[in-house]
Amino acid sequence: MGMQQETTCHSLIAGKSTPGVAGRVRSVDPSTDREEGPEFSFLSEGQLCAAVQAADEAFAEYRALDPARRAAFLEDAAQKVDAQGEEIISTAMRETGLPRQRLQGELARTVNQLRLFAGVAREGDHFGVRIDPALPERGPLPRPDLRQRKVPLGPAAVFGASNFPLAFSVAGGDTASALAAGCPVVFKAHNAHPATSQLVGLALSAAVAEADLPGGVFSLVYGRGNEIGQQLVKDARIKAVGFTGSRGGGTALMATAAARPQPIPVFAEMSSINPVVVLASAIASRTMRAVLAEGFIGSVNGSGGQLCTSPGLMFVPAGSDGDAFIETVADQVSMAEGATMLTPSISTARVRGESRVSSLPGVHEVGHGVEGASANAPAPSVYSAAATTFLQTPALAEEVFGAHSLLIRYADLEELEALVDHLEGQLTATLHLDPEDSGDLEMARSILPALELKVGRVLANGWPTGVDVGEAIVHGGPFPATADGRSTSVGTLAIDRFMRPVAYQNLPEGLQPEVVRDANPWGVPRRVDGEYDLGG
Amino acid sequence: MGMQQETTCHSLIAGKSTPGVAGRVRSVDPSTDREEGPEFSFLSEGQLCAAVQAADEAFAEYRALDPARRAAFLEDAAQKVDAQGEEIISTAMRETGLPRQRLQGELARTVNQLRLFAGVAREGDHFGVRIDPALPERGPLPRPDLRQRKVPLGPAAVFGASNFPLAFSVAGGDTASALAAGCPVVFKAHNAHPATSQLVGLALSAAVAEADLPGGVFSLVYGRGNEIGQQLVKDARIKAVGFTGSRGGGTALMATAAARPQPIPVFAEMSSINPVVVLASAIASRTMRAVLAEGFIGSVNGSGGQLCTSPGLMFVPAGSDGDAFIETVADQVSMAEGATMLTPSISTARVRGESRVSSLPGVHEVGHGVEGASANAPAPSVYSAAATTFLQTPALAEEVFGAHSLLIRYADLEELEALVDHLEGQLTATLHLDPEDSGDLEMARSILPALELKVGRVLANGWPTGVDVGEAIVHGGPFPATADGRSTSVGTLAIDRFMRPVAYQNLPEGLQPEVVRDANPWGVPRRVDGEYDLGG
Repeated sequence: MGMQQETTCHSLIAGKSTPGVAGRVRSVDPSTDREEGPEFSFLSEGQLCAAVQAADEAFAEYRALDPARRAAFLEDAAQKVDAQGEEIISTAMRETGLPRQRLQGELARTVNQLRLFAGVAREGDHFGVRIDPALPERGPLPRPDLRQRKVPLGPAAVFGASNFPLAFSVAGGDTASALAAGCPVVFKAHNAHPATSQLVGLALSAAVAEADLPGGVFSLVYGRGNEIGQQLVKDARIKAVGFTGSRGGGTALMATAAARPQPIPVFAEMSSINPVVVLASAIASRTMRAVLAEGFIGSVNGSGGQLCTSPGLMFVPAGSDGDAFIETVADQVSMAEGATMLTPSISTARVRGESRVSSLPGVHEVGHGVEGASANAPAPSVYSAAATTFLQTPALAEEVFGAHSLLIRYADLEELEALVDHLEGQLTATLHLDPEDSGDLEMARSILPALELKVGRVLANGWPTGVDVGEAIVHGGPFPATADGRSTSVGTLAIDRFMRPVAYQNLPEGLQPEVVRDANPWGVPRRVDGEYDLGG
Repeated sequence: MGMQQETTCHSLIAGKSTPGVAGRVRSVDPSTDREEGPEFSFLSEGQLCAAVQAADEAFAEYRALDPARRAAFLEDAAQKVDAQGEEIISTAMRETGLPRQRLQGELARTVNQLRLFAGVAREGDHFGVRIDPALPERGPLPRPDLRQRKVPLGPAAVFGASNFPLAFSVAGGDTASALAAGCPVVFKAHNAHPATSQLVGLALSAAVAEADLPGGVFSLVYGRGNEIGQQLVKDARIKAVGFTGSRGGGTALMATAAARPQPIPVFAEMSSINPVVVLASAIASRTMRAVLAEGFIGSVNGSGGQLCTSPGLMFVPAGSDGDAFIETVADQVSMAEGATMLTPSISTARVRGESRVSSLPGVHEVGHGVEGASANAPAPSVYSAAATTFLQTPALAEEVFGAHSLLIRYADLEELEALVDHLEGQLTATLHLDPEDSGDLEMARSILPALELKVGRVLANGWPTGVDVGEAIVHGGPFPATADGRSTSVGTLAIDRFMRPVAYQNLPEGLQPEVVRDANPWGVPRRVDGEYDLGG
């Protein structure tokens, strides 16, 4: 399963390494701007078609797996990815510029996520089984026997994100949840980390083979980003799309999916500036201001600011405590060093984004850090503006991807409410407050109802970067944070994206799907006649 | 609350009767083709805006209601609709041509549906609460306290269907589920039953007032179908759309919703021909054939064939039993009498649709019933064609709304599988088989996996018309049966359409929504640390 770094990376179609005939590209080390990664080959349209065909052919057998086998497959995939951990991490370091510790954490998250979804598949709650037993004596009409379960949608196209080469990439959340649901996955590798993708893809393909599943359960494909993406989403055999990336990329896929003869759901996680609301008592002392400013700049600059939940916007009270806090932020940012960004073009866009913001009337520089020593490592930056400026300048609400944030001063509750109302949909919103202070609590209670309608997650006294993967997390939010706020791309609820309900009426028991039979052979939790039956 | 039939029907904006300034129309009695219903007035764009504004303003208070109050409101609404039952039924008979018994059943269903959703609101399972308690000792990072609940999306636009003047109209399933979720409703009355809509709208408005809720929780609006519909769906304050109607109407709303600056979900139930698969042993005896043919024509002709689940397609085995069955169907249909259709234009489209089918090469007449005595009551009709004809003629898969069906002969399993593969998404598919016959069972097992992927509900040995409203029903299915097969428009699961998850991280208890607090004050079922806690 090893891979020489010099070897060309090819697509893995149904487990088979398939040299692409539509060109080759060499990947770039962003810390040096040198083409020194491996070459990788691009699939042609006809070759991509074969990957989708394999997924389509694998679907019937794969979705019929019992929970124990599906869970075992996912656990084996986790083990195989973990076993390649050292090579994966060193490869990802070279391809992405991200530091070892960050990638170690991301690998652990990715492996745990696969195991978490193995647990979901084994428990079977995601089948959503509901049984209304027949009531032959009911008037005026007897009630038929009705049994409901969810079925997977079909082959899913999943797109890797540049900024999480593991946790939102080949074996990331979308892949794990789609596979747990019973959907084969055609995974489009992000061209910023082709060799990392290859290593993880080989591990998944090996798990597919070892479980004796049809190869088409998983394919890894390389191609020119926009073209291959459009082609995948247009293919009638693809039934759902998972995407993490830019607003432009996500909305283009949404438009393509909506224009198909049979439209399909696109789960795109796109754009968020993650507002942080600082309430008065959270910055009432010098110590509090120092701790808050340090935490803030740490969150802004973590992973070079290249996290979907990076706090790009902070609402700070007017007045002397606010002034003093902003001075502390200026001190903190001046000590921050830029990190190598994921690709040269992302770094260029970051610099251009900052220029756009800084040239707007009413925007003031708070402070800058220093450029990193390597290539593509722009200095972190913080700016400020008045609430009225923010409300009148739509460009200030646009995401600048990278270590950059904007402080907006508000005079009172009324102005803060206007700022919250002005926000687009976000992944997160954060409150910093003194939980013992009645003024802070009252202000928080006043804005929470409006704030929660804009976001997928509300935090208090923490930082939005760092997403804990479990049952209760939501990594989602109204458009444009995602294509559709009704789901999450992180956590166990993500499996729901890939499933839909089917009802069975008066089917002879022998024709019923096993999971809805009276005997509950898979021991799944169910609702029977309106009451929970926890199975077990 | 009574209404003179001579009175003009006006929109009810936040409970207030509001004469529309964009014209008036008189409704038509379809059984006589005479304009003898009441006049009703159309809203202008500015007037519609006021209804949406009222819904938007009502949202914050309405969504914050505790479960007991929301349930009591829905139960009172049910009671108030029921109390007007006799006037509602007689009005609907005149406006729709549907018979008393059918409308009595529909009224009961509508009232029960409101009560069912009151129960859903009271139980609180739809909040989908999940709690991952903090694990401060967890390594490498502590787990924060994470609590998830679902929140309603916001004001919903709901469109009445012509064919269910009660159960898919003003107080129908979409209204009941949206209100139970906490979404205010702006209801667009179907112009085929304005006076019926008015009576039910008055009952709902009275319930809103009696519960001391903001008037904007419910508005009933009249307007020119396409124009007012587009306007509603374009309005930025509308956050979800429920629609039951034609494929053209539904896809137009889907396109508008997708093109908004902030796209929103459209739940459109549109087009289905509801295939019925007859397996060999189900027609092995004369008696079986007679019972099946009678049931079939009863289902085809019930409510004039104007049901979303009307069986417009039947797959019949080749061979002598199949021939004999078709003769029996011909006998049965010859005795069937046409019913007044809902509107003159629906009747015209029905006649035109049959002409289109009958003129296609390879299509044979099986039999016709007789025209009804009233206006707009075309004779029921059945045609047949070979499997190859069906596979090669896309027009044969299009819905002809009304009492009309098509029998397709298949030679063997292979041909039956090809027919199933050829189907578009459907609300239902039905199997007729002998549950003791191993040949039938084997054939059913062979086609079920493909069949269930095309539909929302699979039935055996029954008829798809007649939808039992409960927990386990699915009235949905892949496009074009609906806009998105991941939900249902009938049954308790429909509430999920109107909600999305939000996570709360480390919020002080006093800021947490009540439903996620440790004490579980509303007693809702929750998942805590990965285990069910049934509340109570």
